[in-house]
Amino acid sequence: MTTAPVAPGALVADRDRLRALLDQFAGLSEPVSGPGVTRLAYTHLEREAHAVFAAHMEELGAAVRTDAAGNTLAELPGTDRSAPAIGTGSHLDSVPDGGRFDGIVGVVAAMETARLVTEHAAAHRHPLRFVVFAAEEGARFGQACTGSRIAAGLTGPADLPGKRDADGVSLAEAMTGVGLDPARVGDARWDHADWAAFVELHIEQGAVLESTGRRVGVVDAISGSTRLRIDLEGRASHSGGTPMHLRADAAAAAAEIVLLAESVGLRAAAWGTRATVGRIDVAPGSMTTIAGGASLWVDVRGLDLDRQQRAAAEIVESAAAACARRGVRCTATPLAETPPVPLPAVVRDTLVATCHDLGLEPTVLPSGASHDAQQVNEVTPAGMLFIPSRDGISHDPAEDTDLDDVALGTTVLAASLLRLDGELP
Amino acid sequence: MTTAPVAPGALVADRDRLRALLDQFAGLSEPVSGPGVTRLAYTHLEREAHAVFAAHMEELGAAVRTDAAGNTLAELPGTDRSAPAIGTGSHLDSVPDGGRFDGIVGVVAAMETARLVTEHAAAHRHPLRFVVFAAEEGARFGQACTGSRIAAGLTGPADLPGKRDADGVSLAEAMTGVGLDPARVGDARWDHADWAAFVELHIEQGAVLESTGRRVGVVDAISGSTRLRIDLEGRASHSGGTPMHLRADAAAAAAEIVLLAESVGLRAAAWGTRATVGRIDVAPGSMTTIAGGASLWVDVRGLDLDRQQRAAAEIVESAAAACARRGVRCTATPLAETPPVPLPAVVRDTLVATCHDLGLEPTVLPSGASHDAQQVNEVTPAGMLFIPSRDGISHDPAEDTDLDDVALGTTVLAASLLRLDGELP
Repeated sequence: MTTAPVAPGALVADRDRLRALLDQFAGLSEPVSGPGVTRLAYTHLEREAHAVFAAHMEELGAAVRTDAAGNTLAELPGTDRSAPAIGTGSHLDSVPDGGRFDGIVGVVAAMETARLVTEHAAAHRHPLRFVVFAAEEGARFGQACTGSRIAAGLTGPADLPGKRDADGVSLAEAMTGVGLDPARVGDARWDHADWAAFVELHIEQGAVLESTGRRVGVVDAISGSTRLRIDLEGRASHSGGTPMHLRADAAAAAAEIVLLAESVGLRAAAWGTRATVGRIDVAPGSMTTIAGGASLWVDVRGLDLDRQQRAAAEIVESAAAACARRGVRCTATPLAETPPVPLPAVVRDTLVATCHDLGLEPTVLPSGASHDAQQVNEVTPAGMLFIPSRDGISHDPAEDTDLDDVALGTTVLAASLLRLDGELP
Repeated sequence: MTTAPVAPGALVADRDRLRALLDQFAGLSEPVSGPGVTRLAYTHLEREAHAVFAAHMEELGAAVRTDAAGNTLAELPGTDRSAPAIGTGSHLDSVPDGGRFDGIVGVVAAMETARLVTEHAAAHRHPLRFVVFAAEEGARFGQACTGSRIAAGLTGPADLPGKRDADGVSLAEAMTGVGLDPARVGDARWDHADWAAFVELHIEQGAVLESTGRRVGVVDAISGSTRLRIDLEGRASHSGGTPMHLRADAAAAAAEIVLLAESVGLRAAAWGTRATVGRIDVAPGSMTTIAGGASLWVDVRGLDLDRQQRAAAEIVESAAAACARRGVRCTATPLAETPPVPLPAVVRDTLVATCHDLGLEPTVLPSGASHDAQQVNEVTPAGMLFIPSRDGISHDPAEDTDLDDVALGTTVLAASLLRLDGELP
């Protein structure tokens, strides 16, 4: 096949093809979960979505394989058979009752980019590698970016049996359940010599682009996350028979901790720290019984590891003090920690320059959410493009991004990969 | 059969028989519910427990029947065939993962009293009626004392389809499911001309008796209860991508309301008011999603209806104000309301006098929990005897009462019924 160099912006993404792909993925959802998309990590629905991607890429002539972590990789060879790859991609799993853009936008942009490159027979020296990472969302197992962490060598076989979902199923068991071999995930580790650079397109999941009126963002740093579970043990008793001053009410202690976490987040917000309690379980959960037990899941995000860890420690300390006053036992269990990651200038500068090539002024901004690109950056220089999220809403059925922005982001992504191809050794 | 008058205290309850009955009822529990007893209102397990009671009473020669509400009544005729009945009894249903004494103690005491009366051929002019009320616990349907409310004419057929459990099953459907006919519950209404008095023995479900060192309590008033559900609608969003100041966090709003309810309860505690949030549901309940919705179940108990209603109104008002500040929608739905009930002196004085007959000094105290006796009091003068709860714990697997106290309470109950038999016209 003869290829030819293309001018910046010659590869223009097609709205309707992107829409059709987004619709197709949105249709792969648990039927009983609410109005949003539910396609959890390491479920058959997630595998089915990967298979849609694989079939599309095979149709374009790409060589497709799935690794032991469940990541799907599709490759279009470059003109230099010895050159390392330039990659792009994202994930196809979702939170429970989530949106139809988070992760998926980066995958459909990769699929459309591959189509544009092959249709235009665009010349590229490096192989282009299109990746769908497995199990990016931390909602099910309490650990985010499992597929990309395995690729980066940050998670190995020994880490998989210990992390369990709400039903007690471990990561290892869930992987086995969808036909993967958790004992072999070491084989899925990426070799940095095999990679030149990686770019992920993602929705912002925040309202900065929308508030600045910019349509494209270039990420300079990705927030880290310190996650923990706080378990409380009070004394269950009858809501009528127990005077207020004789209670050890685990629900009231949990409430106090939720507000303590919020106040720590508000105080540290100026440094990019945020604290969230998104899940609270109260036992026995009866209107006429003072709660004897409660569990809270806390997610602390930061742009500075020291501040992030200090905020988490402050929440645990003030929770312990509040519980001591109430006669409630309090145990904090660390679940996961990822440090904030500054993304390298070498890719970031190319992304900004590509925007300028296309007549766009991007906003350079940090990412509040963690992303696969952050893990990939352990192996090869990684960059990220953001497109706007309407009202900043994400992880919710109301998550929305204008289709024109999806198309524009895809056009920038395709041009960026080709520009990197020209610039990188 | 020849009967003879018996001296006060001649009917002495047997510890071992009481223990065997308590063990038998404790065995009738959902197997997967935790270490406690789970025998919810209008389930087959509750009906099975009623059948154990019925078989025991039939064996003693009592006439047994079940009414349309599922209440089981057993009668030993008195010497005066035209005299109204003196009654005793309690309930056999439980909260989820509850204790083995709440309600059950009053039923096994009734069974043992019937055995003592028949074994000693104790003379009594009034018929003695032993009652097990159905569905006393409000945990399943949000309404307490359904069986006794039907008997008292406080709940009718029209009230049953509207109250639903967490699975959406209505009271009417649950009744039909265990072979009862909710359309016919009007037939279960008691006629006051048919009744002379009623006494219920119950565990205290509080720590007053324990703290005073007394083994028997006589109740002078039963707390009322105002119950409501507060539903919150915030904005679900990504825990990393959403800055602290742009959130509408339903979990944080819920936490604030739990503490507001607690502070209202603490402030009003001097007047016997208590406020509890025993159940909190947060949606979607994911660690990485700011909660978009939450529901709280609030139970306000009081010894004065005006103060009880004012406390509930204050919780709703301050919840609305807190939610308005947070941009969270707040809707309060009343679930049920029962006023506090002072119990009549005519029965109370007899219970105190009976204790004195037996050389006991009772504590006269209010009941924090609502009870079937409170509903029965709408039909006929009702009294209550309390025995101690270890550490005041109830509605929990750790609920415990010394078997000697169960036996002593039963002895007082039997003597009280015979004393009432002599005193009442």
